[in-house]
Amino acid sequence: MKNMKNELNLYKESAVCFKIAVCQQKVRQTKSENLAAASKAVKKAAELGAHIVVLPEMFVCDFVPENMRENAEPAEGETVDMLKSAAHDNDIWLVGGSFPEMAEDGRLYNVCPIVSPDGRTVHFYRKTHLFDVDIKDGVVSAESDVFTPGNRLVTVNTGFVRLGIAICYDIRFPYVFTGLAKLGAKLAVLPAAFSAGTGSAHWETLIKARALDSQMFVAGACSAYSEETRFKTYGHSMIADPWGRIIVSAGSGEEIITADIYINEADQVRRELPVLKHMREDFIKKT
Amino acid sequence: MKNMKNELNLYKESAVCFKIAVCQQKVRQTKSENLAAASKAVKKAAELGAHIVVLPEMFVCDFVPENMRENAEPAEGETVDMLKSAAHDNDIWLVGGSFPEMAEDGRLYNVCPIVSPDGRTVHFYRKTHLFDVDIKDGVVSAESDVFTPGNRLVTVNTGFVRLGIAICYDIRFPYVFTGLAKLGAKLAVLPAAFSAGTGSAHWETLIKARALDSQMFVAGACSAYSEETRFKTYGHSMIADPWGRIIVSAGSGEEIITADIYINEADQVRRELPVLKHMREDFIKKT
Repeated sequence: MKNMKNELNLYKESAVCFKIAVCQQKVRQTKSENLAAASKAVKKAAELGAHIVVLPEMFVCDFVPENMRENAEPAEGETVDMLKSAAHDNDIWLVGGSFPEMAEDGRLYNVCPIVSPDGRTVHFYRKTHLFDVDIKDGVVSAESDVFTPGNRLVTVNTGFVRLGIAICYDIRFPYVFTGLAKLGAKLAVLPAAFSAGTGSAHWETLIKARALDSQMFVAGACSAYSEETRFKTYGHSMIADPWGRIIVSAGSGEEIITADIYINEADQVRRELPVLKHMREDFIKKT
Repeated sequence: MKNMKNELNLYKESAVCFKIAVCQQKVRQTKSENLAAASKAVKKAAELGAHIVVLPEMFVCDFVPENMRENAEPAEGETVDMLKSAAHDNDIWLVGGSFPEMAEDGRLYNVCPIVSPDGRTVHFYRKTHLFDVDIKDGVVSAESDVFTPGNRLVTVNTGFVRLGIAICYDIRFPYVFTGLAKLGAKLAVLPAAFSAGTGSAHWETLIKARALDSQMFVAGACSAYSEETRFKTYGHSMIADPWGRIIVSAGSGEEIITADIYINEADQVRRELPVLKHMREDFIKKT
């Protein structure tokens, strides 16, 4: 297990306790302002003792279609450069929200980079479910006009917990989270830019439900509500435990929340109420 | 469409509105008392205008292992006889909770009978996920010591809505509900005997989550809390709409709740926020 600057705590029976922080960033005018603000927030989160820090989806720019190609960059461009420095300098695992990735063939992906504390290894998760909705008196979005969906689930072994990665709208698809759990994840991190309307209706229920279904901790990192962006997001980042309890939650503004995660609580819930074990694979294939 | 005694209402654009009732029965001492009480409750629900009436899981006896074989009967035994009469006499679709079915080979199933208003046709759903849990300071159950699990999902076309059937612990498995939705169900009915402890922790979240995931109405019919039974159930029967809102809910005691269901709300939600359409079949098979 990595010996990090923020030392991991040993908990009863040698179980691990670590601290996770969510930086509920608001989106500023330019990419460089957003990268600078995120870098500062990550530093602050590390000073609060975090071992894992999570940024929101599309923290680099206002999440409107015409911004995406303009702000797109290669997988390893200036955004990941900043994230690598921030992870290294603060000795933390950094789940770098998401940014528009321009692939070599010119396609765009809504991609989440996950950087190790040495600032070297980067895992990438490309959002697999794109937000194409048209809600009466509510949010309208056609994410697939701009982005191509990814095709695989991603988990990352930090040494002290395996992280499962999902982005925003993915949360409405339970099999993503049970899939991550089957791959060994015990903590799902979810960068999001949940719309203000569907957020107040569904966000908390979905966070709790995915924690219950997949018997994981779930950390939802939504960008802060801002008067200055066109795409209005809900904020209210929150973290649920595997029993479906919200252990910490934010308001709508810019804020850092943290939680101490006793990861073997996931093992205990899975042992006592073995939902994952009881899943009927025959059914899943059939239905 | 069937012309029922409780006439179906035409709603804007010829959409159907119907009334569903949940009879939150408490479990009495003997099977005959329970059948009589259920018969009375169904009559009362019909008098309130219900077109569909739902009874709780295992309403015939206290849900403890040693009661199951003793109270078991063939699929079409005295319990279904009572349900047929009740459906016919009150001209309603009756989702008859569940009882222990003794198959010809001696196996027991936790089975839900669904009876048509003519009192003739009976569909059966055998519970597919058995409640085998051992929660510290909480409920302990080994349902599979007694029952054999069913192997197929069941939907029933009433003519004005297709019902999807699930029983209690099934609610923790999202693919049951999305599976029912794919089979055409727009209203899931869930007879349950949710334990008091897990009920207060999870029941409402699960009802709302399944409504959101599968974009259906979900009617959870849990038996009332009773001092006189050994297995303590939660009560709090409730009905959610496809937007995940609880439209009616009960307390812990014996009670009938009803709701008017505008079924094309499910179509609207599925059109505006097409989660079911966005499900990645490739993923489901893979994960």
